[in-house]
Order: sequence, then structure tokens, then C-alpha cells
Amino acid sequence: MNTAALREQFRAGLVRPTAGLAPGVTQVNLIALPRDWAWDMLLYAQRNPQPCPVLDVSDPGVPSTVLAPDADLRTDLPLYRVWRDGALVEEAPDATAAWRDDLVAFLIGCSFTFESGLLAAGIEVRHIAAGSNVPMYRTNRECRPAGRLGGPLVVSMRPIPADRVSDAVRISGRYPAVHGAPVHVGDPDALGIPDLARPDYGDPVDVRPGEIPVFWACGVTPQAAVVASKVPYAVTHAPGHMFVTDTPDSRYQV
Amino acid sequence: MNTAALREQFRAGLVRPTAGLAPGVTQVNLIALPRDWAWDMLLYAQRNPQPCPVLDVSDPGVPSTVLAPDADLRTDLPLYRVWRDGALVEEAPDATAAWRDDLVAFLIGCSFTFESGLLAAGIEVRHIAAGSNVPMYRTNRECRPAGRLGGPLVVSMRPIPADRVSDAVRISGRYPAVHGAPVHVGDPDALGIPDLARPDYGDPVDVRPGEIPVFWACGVTPQAAVVASKVPYAVTHAPGHMFVTDTPDSRYQV
Repeated sequence: MNTAALREQFRAGLVRPTAGLAPGVTQVNLIALPRDWAWDMLLYAQRNPQPCPVLDVSDPGVPSTVLAPDADLRTDLPLYRVWRDGALVEEAPDATAAWRDDLVAFLIGCSFTFESGLLAAGIEVRHIAAGSNVPMYRTNRECRPAGRLGGPLVVSMRPIPADRVSDAVRISGRYPAVHGAPVHVGDPDALGIPDLARPDYGDPVDVRPGEIPVFWACGVTPQAAVVASKVPYAVTHAPGHMFVTDTPDSRYQV
Repeated sequence: MNTAALREQFRAGLVRPTAGLAPGVTQVNLIALPRDWAWDMLLYAQRNPQPCPVLDVSDPGVPSTVLAPDADLRTDLPLYRVWRDGALVEEAPDATAAWRDDLVAFLIGCSFTFESGLLAAGIEVRHIAAGSNVPMYRTNRECRPAGRLGGPLVVSMRPIPADRVSDAVRISGRYPAVHGAPVHVGDPDALGIPDLARPDYGDPVDVRPGEIPVFWACGVTPQAAVVASKVPYAVTHAPGHMFVTDTPDSRYQV
């Protein structure tokens, strides 16, 4: 799939989760904050690199990125969220009206990057097989705060057969710039997740007998910080509805 | 060597390069800039992660770090440099008088971290064998600018036997958070280095027959940006005279 053509479809109004699209190409999380909050966000990312691996930062008001030079960050994602004072106020397929001249856009790595590697190793990625969005959960782990920003770690979950957990760790660990190895293997209770069937974001997936729920740090973590810290204004992607770049996944492989 | 005892010696006035000291423990570059320049620096680091891998950032005016909680960044390095308007104005074993309440300290990974791995693989690290400082060179490669900050890439050089270059790449590549794999193997001319015997920082080392000069991105790069961008004020370590943390190198191994 040509990535420019895919973004063109999203620009024209197509709304759908992007898991499984454009395999081998990096997808990223978007969070755009007022210039006044950009330092807090960049420092929060530096202090929490596993959930918040920053792959690019725009200049204030400039809705573009080196990761896909021809793209427009205001229109080329399938679905956006607009936040005021930490509350979700709008979900929309176009963010042109919501954009402001003082917004600094952060593009944050996404675990979809290593899913190609899992598939290539013959490990089923359940939400791709199901054609649904990856399940994501707020945890009881607090990120290290930075300035005015704080909040919980958000994780994505993939059920992995017990005899492939080592492979999944090894393969995802090759991509430290896009969340890297899991933060937790099994035992959702210890992360404060009461029910895997009720994710905080995305869709639930089956966990079958012999499978272990494996948890990776998730790029929705900044959105949880927007809520917890009552950030006055933010524009983000909707969970699972990522920005598809032109950058190959291999760029982030160690 | 106990790292606290080592810092105590530096606090008491010992001045010496730190290459080869406290093997297995992370050493870092220091650059402290006024709060007003901190955004530019953090963004410069994000855009140039190979020379500027940020391992911690202090709060403004707070001369401490999670990397060594009991240490004082103003006194515990062997040698400091003070910069005004992009010019080196002072070199001193103590930075207490130079410190300001608005300084934000950036601690940046150092290639000394992977030198333990090279030594363990039986690869001689020439400047350690010679008891001297690693040779460092300004190159003709510009870093990607950020705000008001720009400048050349600085590299460190280690001569490696031709049949061990692959091993050196592989071993250092395991540490992407501390400069990672080399940026250049051989051909110093192509980097704009006219004479390996005359480094811009540190000491020259012998390159023997059968050895290839191998170049790694270097944490002195921010100091070159201070010069090129005429930053009004900065306090840094003196090249090769690093801050010895309490953090094991293994923390940064992929």
C-alpha cells in the first residue's frame, strides 16, 4: 500500500483503526500541545522513554514532520481527539479547525512497528487477525512527572502463546525507539487491570488457553497525562487511529 | 572502585580524564544551560539522538540527578568549562561559583559505556591502554538544528584492527542510548578530518598498520553547538572529564 495514497484516503474522510495497514512502515502517535506546555511534554517523554519515544517534534504551528514530508498533520490521520482542560471535547476526522498557531506536534513511536516482526516470526497478532483495534489499559503505575505533567502508564496488550513469549520479547526488544520489550508479562492484576475484557481504549480480544497476556508501554500514555494534568488544550490522534509515515520500521531496529 | 569515593576525590580537587575509571558504570557528559535555552537543547538532543542521547535532565537550578542521587553536579566532576556568548571563558575543577538558579542540567550518554564491552571482547581501547584522553574531532557534518541551536557533529575515534571492526560495531550497537554503533568507519577525509594526529579535543593516539579509525558520535557535540550558536551562558564538563554516575552500563544495553 502506498502511504501517500493511504493518507489521501484519511484526508478524504475514511475513519478506521490503522493496525495492520502499510506493514513495514512506521505508524506514530500524535500529541500537539501549546508551545507553553511543550517543554513539559518533551521532558515527560525524556523521563518516560518507553511509553513516550519521541520520533519527531514540529516547530510551533507547523503541521508537518520529517517522517512524511508531504503530509499534513491536521488532516492526514483517520481520527483526532480535541481536549480542553483535560477533558475530551471532540472526536473528528479532520483537525484543521482545531489547530492553533502555537501548537507543537509530538510524534511518538507506536508498537505497531514491531508487529510486522511478530507476524514474520509466525506469532499471531490477535487484534490484526480479528480486524479490530488493539486493547489498551490505564495501569496503576505512575510515570515519572515532568513540570506540570504527570499521569499513569498506559499499556497495549497482545495474547502470546506461552512458548512464544520469549520470541515476542526478543523481537520487540530490537525496537527500543518504539516501546521496545514488554513492560509486563502476565498477571494483569499487578498492573491494576481488573478485567482484560474491558479495555480503557480500543477493543477487547480473546485470550485463549495457553496464552499469556503480554503488556507493552503504549503511546496513548501522553493522552492519559493530558487528562490527569488537566492540560488546557491538546489535539491528539484517537487511540489506534495512527499517523502513517513514510519511514520504514527498519530505521528503528537495533 | 566505589563511585561515591571517586566523586569525593574529584570534589576534593583531583583533575584527570575519566576513561577507564569505574568500569561497568555509566559516565555522562554534562551541559547546563539557562532555562530560556533548555527547550532548544532538549529538542536539539531529540533531533540528534546519536551524539546527544539524554539520560537525565534536572529541574532548573537543581544540581542533582537520578543517575547518582547523592552527587552534586557543581562539584563532583573532575573538570568543568564555563562558556559565555559561545566562547570558553574558564576551566575549573569546581563549578559552584559558576552555577546559576536558572540552569537546567542535561546529562548525556558517553561512549565510555561500551568500552567495557570492547575490552571484554578482547578489543584494545587505545586511549585506555595509553592512559590518555580519547581523541575527538569536529566533523563537516551539521547536526539537525533546533530553535536557536545548531552546529557540527563531534566524533570520538578508536583505532580498531580490521578483523575486529564488525565486532566493535556489533558490541557498541547494543547501546543505542549511549551513542550506539559507529557513524563512520575509516576515511577520515570524508568527515572533514584532515589529520588524525591533531584532534580538536582530547589526546592523539597511534593508528597502527592494519587498524581502521572508527568514529562514534560524541557527547561533546553540544559544546560545539554552544560555540556555533553563541549561547549566552553554559557550564559543561571538560572533554573526557566525565561525571561518573551510580548507574550500571547494563541499564542501557538492548
